[in-house]
Amino acid sequence: MTPEEFRTAGHTLIDWIADHRERIPELPVQAQVAPGEIAAALAPSAPERPQPFPEVLADLERIVVPGITQTQHPGFFGWFPSNASLASVLGDIASSGLGALGITWQSAPALTEVELVVTDWLRAETGLSPAWHGAIHDTASTACLVAMLAARERAGDYGETRGGLQAEPTPLVVYTSPHAHSSVPKAVALAGFGADNLRLVDVDPQTFAMRPDALAAAMADDVAAGRRPAAVVASVGTTGTTSVDPVAEIVAVAARHGAWVHVDAAMAGSAMLLPEHRGLFTGVEDADSLSWNPHKWLGTVLDCSLLYLRDVDHLVRVMSTDPSYLRSAADDELARAGVPQYKDWGIPLGRRFRALKLWFHLRLDGLEAIRGRLRRDLANAAWLAEQVRAAPGWRVMAPVRLQTVCLRHEPTGTVAEDGTVLDGEALDAHTLAWAQAVNASGEAFVTPSLLDGRWMVRVSVGAEATEREDVARLWELLQAICEK
Amino acid sequence: MTPEEFRTAGHTLIDWIADHRERIPELPVQAQVAPGEIAAALAPSAPERPQPFPEVLADLERIVVPGITQTQHPGFFGWFPSNASLASVLGDIASSGLGALGITWQSAPALTEVELVVTDWLRAETGLSPAWHGAIHDTASTACLVAMLAARERAGDYGETRGGLQAEPTPLVVYTSPHAHSSVPKAVALAGFGADNLRLVDVDPQTFAMRPDALAAAMADDVAAGRRPAAVVASVGTTGTTSVDPVAEIVAVAARHGAWVHVDAAMAGSAMLLPEHRGLFTGVEDADSLSWNPHKWLGTVLDCSLLYLRDVDHLVRVMSTDPSYLRSAADDELARAGVPQYKDWGIPLGRRFRALKLWFHLRLDGLEAIRGRLRRDLANAAWLAEQVRAAPGWRVMAPVRLQTVCLRHEPTGTVAEDGTVLDGEALDAHTLAWAQAVNASGEAFVTPSLLDGRWMVRVSVGAEATEREDVARLWELLQAICEK
Repeated sequence: MTPEEFRTAGHTLIDWIADHRERIPELPVQAQVAPGEIAAALAPSAPERPQPFPEVLADLERIVVPGITQTQHPGFFGWFPSNASLASVLGDIASSGLGALGITWQSAPALTEVELVVTDWLRAETGLSPAWHGAIHDTASTACLVAMLAARERAGDYGETRGGLQAEPTPLVVYTSPHAHSSVPKAVALAGFGADNLRLVDVDPQTFAMRPDALAAAMADDVAAGRRPAAVVASVGTTGTTSVDPVAEIVAVAARHGAWVHVDAAMAGSAMLLPEHRGLFTGVEDADSLSWNPHKWLGTVLDCSLLYLRDVDHLVRVMSTDPSYLRSAADDELARAGVPQYKDWGIPLGRRFRALKLWFHLRLDGLEAIRGRLRRDLANAAWLAEQVRAAPGWRVMAPVRLQTVCLRHEPTGTVAEDGTVLDGEALDAHTLAWAQAVNASGEAFVTPSLLDGRWMVRVSVGAEATEREDVARLWELLQAICEK
Repeated sequence: MTPEEFRTAGHTLIDWIADHRERIPELPVQAQVAPGEIAAALAPSAPERPQPFPEVLADLERIVVPGITQTQHPGFFGWFPSNASLASVLGDIASSGLGALGITWQSAPALTEVELVVTDWLRAETGLSPAWHGAIHDTASTACLVAMLAARERAGDYGETRGGLQAEPTPLVVYTSPHAHSSVPKAVALAGFGADNLRLVDVDPQTFAMRPDALAAAMADDVAAGRRPAAVVASVGTTGTTSVDPVAEIVAVAARHGAWVHVDAAMAGSAMLLPEHRGLFTGVEDADSLSWNPHKWLGTVLDCSLLYLRDVDHLVRVMSTDPSYLRSAADDELARAGVPQYKDWGIPLGRRFRALKLWFHLRLDGLEAIRGRLRRDLANAAWLAEQVRAAPGWRVMAPVRLQTVCLRHEPTGTVAEDGTVLDGEALDAHTLAWAQAVNASGEAFVTPSLLDGRWMVRVSVGAEATEREDVARLWELLQAICEK
């Protein structure tokens, strides 16, 4: 395809995207297709001859759009805000159009240095000291794995250079909460620690936050049994209930054993931009690593996950390679100029120019507006929680620390006045049924989740398009479906 | 940013990209900036108030473009072809614009099913049987790590569910060639095997291909010493010399020990689209996993790396998680419909709609034209090798199996008539100096690389824009610089 052909098709596509974004409120939030339906609508093989762009665009419209759960819809209250601000989309388009290759600094100095600068912008805005250094990864799952590998090699004194984890004489143990995201046990498994060496530390029954005393006791038990605490993953804003582990206390306990502390704030990290909410993160400065995703609430289009670390030299020692074909005459100057080789900060060698979408997003939208939107969402969640608390037969299931409201409708006969569950099966069936009815309506989308063994529903407020009236409409819909 | 603001800015950006692509031949190939220069040109903090789009675009032009080594330039012969076809860029723009969230099938059924279909298109076109199933990862480094984790858990009988690699009673060993890409030892290190358990198997001194007899001997030694061969990574098209390990023989040796065979064909995999070159891949059908990168020679804009496996159930068992908040009513139907949950096929949970760029690329360009371009590049490399072989004082350093020509200029006094190196230091200094002069010229870009302890230069033909006249111009430039 020539630049001129691209120009013509590109203009059409830009208009299509603008039109699509405008009509999202009229689309069903949840994709209304059956498994396999889209695959069956696609050609069984790649074409030999070029197909005209209008034909491909028509398929995008006809086949793809109905097959997307519209996370940009004002009625999207599922999983977590997965915003894709149009300012960041422009940055992503620039990245694709440039077609830069990020393997070393030399392959695209700007790719490295814009990333260096924008991750530092967000470091400063989130209140971290200059001791921290960030890089962009695809997701918090990957960031957590990188943190676990860094922790493993610190605890095992760079065993990767010798016999690896299989030659480690002292079993290494990782600690987290049962409310941690599924990516944490996955990272522990993939890093080779083994499920037997993952401790799910007790949480407070009211706040669902990790209990530092329980962590201390678990670590003491392991040490007494000849094992070594290697890492703790603390969550600030768990997926289930947005609960907040007490990072300062956890850091203090971990320090006694030299264990790495990784803070997973994938969704909630955006709240660090709000000084009045920074208390949730007390102690993070003394942790070892922190990840959060601008591709969630902040709204930089997926994928854009930040991993900040203090001891970058250690990470580089764990991750670096130095093949001859990646060396250049400029390498010696890089360290002097304080410029990183990001290939040594994570798993992949090649990287997209993802910093551009963050750069465009922050510059075109500005921090003031972004902070305003976050505050709007927090107020909307607080408002919804108030309505739920005031409504008979409804309950807020967890403290509303941020923009997520965990709730349940408890019909007569399933729950006693004091909150004792009388018929859990019936309650679960009811909860799943109404959540499914909400999602099937196409008007709104919510996520059922287990809490203490029973289903509840998470209302995660924070789609860029969601205003108070959309939250009010959701609340009417929930009542209409549950109380009919 | 509103859709209308996006529409206006988007049109400007599309024109900018088209104009940029048109003027690439006039830009220097290698970025001519010093480390830190770009960072110093950027604002020290994020703005509070929105900045106008023209200002951001002007910075893209003024600061970013000079900081990119232009891999789309017809004079780019570095590392490997890193094409970003404009057809695929359109697909990537559609992906960003849609802002879809790929965490489960339900979050974006189309994201899953287009990926299912396009990876199957390429499976068929590359001659793999329907026993193989593919997914898109960011890079071949990640794909290799996933393969090593799958191999580790097969050899260790799912030790991750127990004490992990640290409780594995039999040391697990991985085998590859010293010519394998740096991501292979890195994956082995990160998967926890340890450097002591990585064997670099001898290669043939002429072809640089792994010797199956040496592999068999190494495995036998390990078994005799009480260790277990867990995996072999075979390279089809190494980075250094495009050498090709004999996959069929390697598979046969590995089978004796039940070792996993991963085939890394990151760059060369595109050649599987050419029936006349499929002989390079003989035996791949019987391997366990194969990765190759459409984001290299094929030209689907970064990042787009394919990992194909035969035993997907095993991979899912290694990678899967099942938190309540990711379950949906459709889950039971998925397996029946043959639709995957890609979250269980790799490391990250969230995924971009990367299948769109492959779908757009293949449909808008068509296979016939793509195959024609690959054949053009192979012919151009063969032509260059002929010129080099015929020129006094020049040598082709490795068999030209694909589109990479490894060469050296050997000035009088450094090498004897029979090829014996007389003064290695002088030869190395000369090689590095002329390669650097080529790159500093801005006319072309090549990559020096070590071969048998001495520097040579790789000319990797295959930028989408590179025609025969560009290769001829490179050859003139090399001669002019070396023979002046």
